[in-house]
Amino acid sequence: MPLTDPNRLFPTEPKLRDLARALHESIQNLPIISPHGHCDPRWFAENERFPNPAELFVIPDHYVFRMLVSQGVDMTELGVPRIDGGATETDPRKIWRLFAANYHLFRGTPSAMWLDHSFEHVFGLEVPLSAETADHYHDRIEACLAHDDFRPRALFDRFNIEVLATTESPLDDLKWHRRIHESGWNGRVITTYRPDDVVDPEFEGFARNVALLGELTGEDTSTWKGYLNAHRARRAYFREFGATATDHGHATARTENLSAIDAEALFQKALAGRCTAEEADAFRGQMLTEMARMSIEDGMTLQIHPGARRNHNREVFHRHGRDKGFDIPGRTDFVGALKPLLDAVGLERGLTVILFTLDETTYGRELAPLAGAYPCLKLGPPWWFFDSYEGIRRFREATTETCGFYNTVGFNDDTRAFCSIPARHDVARRSDCAYLATLVGTGRMRESEAFEVARDLAYGLVKDAYCL
Amino acid sequence: MPLTDPNRLFPTEPKLRDLARALHESIQNLPIISPHGHCDPRWFAENERFPNPAELFVIPDHYVFRMLVSQGVDMTELGVPRIDGGATETDPRKIWRLFAANYHLFRGTPSAMWLDHSFEHVFGLEVPLSAETADHYHDRIEACLAHDDFRPRALFDRFNIEVLATTESPLDDLKWHRRIHESGWNGRVITTYRPDDVVDPEFEGFARNVALLGELTGEDTSTWKGYLNAHRARRAYFREFGATATDHGHATARTENLSAIDAEALFQKALAGRCTAEEADAFRGQMLTEMARMSIEDGMTLQIHPGARRNHNREVFHRHGRDKGFDIPGRTDFVGALKPLLDAVGLERGLTVILFTLDETTYGRELAPLAGAYPCLKLGPPWWFFDSYEGIRRFREATTETCGFYNTVGFNDDTRAFCSIPARHDVARRSDCAYLATLVGTGRMRESEAFEVARDLAYGLVKDAYCL
Amino acid sequence: MPLTDPNRLFPTEPKLRDLARALHESIQNLPIISPHGHCDPRWFAENERFPNPAELFVIPDHYVFRMLVSQGVDMTELGVPRIDGGATETDPRKIWRLFAANYHLFRGTPSAMWLDHSFEHVFGLEVPLSAETADHYHDRIEACLAHDDFRPRALFDRFNIEVLATTESPLDDLKWHRRIHESGWNGRVITTYRPDDVVDPEFEGFARNVALLGELTGEDTSTWKGYLNAHRARRAYFREFGATATDHGHATARTENLSAIDAEALFQKALAGRCTAEEADAFRGQMLTEMARMSIEDGMTLQIHPGARRNHNREVFHRHGRDKGFDIPGRTDFVGALKPLLDAVGLERGLTVILFTLDETTYGRELAPLAGAYPCLKLGPPWWFFDSYEGIRRFREATTETCGFYNTVGFNDDTRAFCSIPARHDVARRSDCAYLATLVGTGRMRESEAFEVARDLAYGLVKDAYCL
Repeated sequence: MPLTDPNRLFPTEPKLRDLARALHESIQNLPIISPHGHCDPRWFAENERFPNPAELFVIPDHYVFRMLVSQGVDMTELGVPRIDGGATETDPRKIWRLFAANYHLFRGTPSAMWLDHSFEHVFGLEVPLSAETADHYHDRIEACLAHDDFRPRALFDRFNIEVLATTESPLDDLKWHRRIHESGWNGRVITTYRPDDVVDPEFEGFARNVALLGELTGEDTSTWKGYLNAHRARRAYFREFGATATDHGHATARTENLSAIDAEALFQKALAGRCTAEEADAFRGQMLTEMARMSIEDGMTLQIHPGARRNHNREVFHRHGRDKGFDIPGRTDFVGALKPLLDAVGLERGLTVILFTLDETTYGRELAPLAGAYPCLKLGPPWWFFDSYEGIRRFREATTETCGFYNTVGFNDDTRAFCSIPARHDVARRSDCAYLATLVGTGRMRESEAFEVARDLAYGLVKDAYCL
Repeated sequence: MPLTDPNRLFPTEPKLRDLARALHESIQNLPIISPHGHCDPRWFAENERFPNPAELFVIPDHYVFRMLVSQGVDMTELGVPRIDGGATETDPRKIWRLFAANYHLFRGTPSAMWLDHSFEHVFGLEVPLSAETADHYHDRIEACLAHDDFRPRALFDRFNIEVLATTESPLDDLKWHRRIHESGWNGRVITTYRPDDVVDPEFEGFARNVALLGELTGEDTSTWKGYLNAHRARRAYFREFGATATDHGHATARTENLSAIDAEALFQKALAGRCTAEEADAFRGQMLTEMARMSIEDGMTLQIHPGARRNHNREVFHRHGRDKGFDIPGRTDFVGALKPLLDAVGLERGLTVILFTLDETTYGRELAPLAGAYPCLKLGPPWWFFDSYEGIRRFREATTETCGFYNTVGFNDDTRAFCSIPARHDVARRSDCAYLATLVGTGRMRESEAFEVARDLAYGLVKDAYCL
Repeated sequence: MPLTDPNRLFPTEPKLRDLARALHESIQNLPIISPHGHCDPRWFAENERFPNPAELFVIPDHYVFRMLVSQGVDMTELGVPRIDGGATETDPRKIWRLFAANYHLFRGTPSAMWLDHSFEHVFGLEVPLSAETADHYHDRIEACLAHDDFRPRALFDRFNIEVLATTESPLDDLKWHRRIHESGWNGRVITTYRPDDVVDPEFEGFARNVALLGELTGEDTSTWKGYLNAHRARRAYFREFGATATDHGHATARTENLSAIDAEALFQKALAGRCTAEEADAFRGQMLTEMARMSIEDGMTLQIHPGARRNHNREVFHRHGRDKGFDIPGRTDFVGALKPLLDAVGLERGLTVILFTLDETTYGRELAPLAGAYPCLKLGPPWWFFDSYEGIRRFREATTETCGFYNTVGFNDDTRAFCSIPARHDVARRSDCAYLATLVGTGRMRESEAFEVARDLAYGLVKDAYCL
């Protein structure tokens, strides 16, 4: 018996199930477009083997280790690196056993679906993971990883990835991307411009980062004009490495449209480290509008994904640093927050702004009404905690009736867990096919239309939205 | 093959489907009660033919043109009137072709269901609308519109409308309603009292409007007492033209219960144009309580539908004016906002206050708990973006368990798209039957009860709530 | 034909239904653990017969009488006690007839399911309740109540209750619990420490209550230190009567972590009645953190259930007092509100904090992400208005994917309606089995896992979370 049910995520009523399966069969072999993610470009530059099962599946994946932490396991027992110099577990087999013994915690979660899919389809495992099978799993995965077929580039090809975007800071020299380009490998790995560390006055080392941005670009980033020009230059540099999009992870969706004089004054305050929290938020908001203006100039797609209260626990942050599973969503406003940007550039036809949310209440109330009116706006797929069967279902049910399918942009995996990429796209494709089959079965769409839309959701829309 | 599936919106499990169909068959021929809408009474007064397909289906319907705008079509290409004097497309066939070529954008939306229903059931069309069939559609609809059978009164009869309410300002002379009355036609078209322009200090020309209200009623509307009396008089005038309800589209649900002295002072400030935004909001809130008190006197049902941030885009508003698809919902509070009104009159048994929302999070958290306690409160049907299969499902699922069916008021179509009225009521009736069948199928209601409730939802509750 | 459908709440698709039934059969005879409720311990101390049908089902149950009130019935007609000295109906048969005549109002509500379940399974009734059957019902229930088999302790045994927690103030002398203990009866009825009246500066008689707490414990509660020690002493006293948990019904989830000096100052202000609303809220927030610290010391589970705006209507509150169906939920924030407590003690492994909400938007956005990270946090079951089939479904769908099943704590009935306890647990168990069957049927869980999880949800998790 396989780890994954061939009919998983399809409706249970037999006719709907058959239609969902037919829809899925028509798209399941389409290449994967991954326009937004956090894989390490070094993997593809060096093409070294992945070190061990724990480092592949547990240590870097906050979806995974946070669940064990929530039940009393200490991050150090799982080998999660410390920034305070303390010791952590280093034996991958011990970490793996602890993970396996707690695998029941993931019942009913997308993590379990993704992991089981990877175990079965990437590593050929057939028995469920548990304390009893932990060593069998470890041995099998270890044995696979030693093969060349399991090196990053080989998996990239096997996963049928047409393009994979990583995410880098403007301060990154993109050396791994350069190495990929120079290697002659034909895999398409591109970068994304993510300037949080040089647009957020509250980011550690903001002024230093802005100065560094000046050095990298030859612009005088101590002036507002020079600072904007440095962004322009750096965006152009990123485009040389395939970038077609920028990405902005602010705490809120706030935008501003200040006069150049007011913006300059705020920028000087930010550089001097004298911004209040309110002023820092305003500056980030101003930069979203500036980025939108530059997107009109250079055609890059602008991604806004606000709403995470990052590093919620003080002790975890001090011990382990960022991105350790303690980022918690909060209420997010879009309607008021985006108005300055939308009044400035919202009707521009050459602009694409993709909105993500961690506050599902905004789907039907704010995001779909906005995307169903403004030409520049498109809705990103359900993100993070909502990248799941139920999350996708709620997203489609809450947005489609108001903004249709064509104001959405297909799927993003947004992951640093490389082996989960096919699994995540599989879940999204199946979930969308289930939704489409339900629309057809309830007379809300014609069958021929559903086949077209299924293909658009899996492949066409994402290529359009990200100019890929 | 028909454009619409005879089993549309029913559950897919065969037994549930059969029950839903039986429930629907028992109510599908009940007359339509439309207690809240925006049809033009002039249509029925003059009974002129509708001009052309574009003016019937595209130009006045912001549900329709906003979707094309969201994908880069300019409103002017669709013939949407400008208030800034600029040119717009005037050839109905060109507009129709542009609409038809983009009809795929509506896949999965209620607009598509309503349009297909109208195309098939009103105009006898059998092929799907597309760029290829655009001219066929245009010709067919044109040919129909030239027949007397397609004039407003004939369609009114054919649609089996028992009563249709329009919405007018207190400043309206109701001449079209008078013409309808005097015409001897037996269709029941009634008005509704919608005083936003004379109760909202921020409405364009508020002071002028209040003065005009004085002229129309012979009351001295420069005093608080005279102003209230003018409302009383004008409400009585509206009741002569069938009005049984008032309607209030404020940005928030805020209510106030000020002393007469404080209310007078605030009124004088409003007349003088010296209200802050906060004071204007307080004044609107006071007027809801005043309207509730008048409703106790004269028996009119009070409708509150807050939550739209109207005219969200500056440029669209300046170019095209109000109601152009850029009204975006926002978070709405009812629990705190309604307390002053509810403390004042909430336990009155002669009062009916119907609440609508664009913030679905309030269904289960605020509205159903309030309506399940206060005798005066009833819940309006899902409104605007939520007038849809999924919207109705979420509404029933989130409210029924807390306030039952009998604190809701049946369906409103709230439309200015006349031909969509049967389609909208059909979607609502089917969606409710689907929900009832599910309750029966899961042992939450007896079958005999479901037939009673189906009839109440389609016909009985709305007549009661609006005293029709 | 029985009043309740043997397949109620199971999925309608035949295979899923069979699996749900099998899951339910495997757990339906597990004993009931009721760790959080409002039954009167006096019932079990005295074991007197219940007085009459109206006092058993209508008068004390705000779920029931509020629905009739919402449709224009006066509380006095239903015999709801007045605190203003006015008269109320005293004839139980008249009250019962009024209830019966309005029973259709409950169609589709969990109240109807619970009542029908009690009518059938406790009192052997087989025809639906209505105006026509009102007297038959009254007579039958009366006849039963006269039997010893229907006394509280007999029903307790018949309901298969393993443990039942009541809720008392620290100022309660627990005499009924003492009587139960001394009686030699083997039913396990335990108390819960609910200190709202001595931790909320806005509670009627706060200073007096704190002084009384001092008298009861021999601590000097005029000092911060003595006040905290009095809590420690009283918690120990409650533990003598079985208490394993504390319970806190604040308006918000706000927590604070003040220095001892600031806390003392705030406490003195509170005692002196000089707290602003903001300071009172801060004091309540500080006390949650203090209670969490004491929980680490003594092992008691901490329950926080914020979000109700209690006594929403002034007139009802003045006439009838607290808990009369006019408590209305409001928006609730957890992410910011809990941070002080979580920074202080959130990573403690010996601490269990159970969160409840009346704001369902927090399930996926805040509560599941928090519970899926913090070791001390667990999610309580859907509460109050959401203790229902749809409420449970939404809870599972919105939380499981993010925090799994093992960060939840099974079911609470939270009721003062004793006869509804088996019905409520039955609804919860069936709803969970329906959800699990759906997960299996859509390939999201293995069947063997579903049987394990079903048992955990019905029995295992609640015993662990409440140390029972």
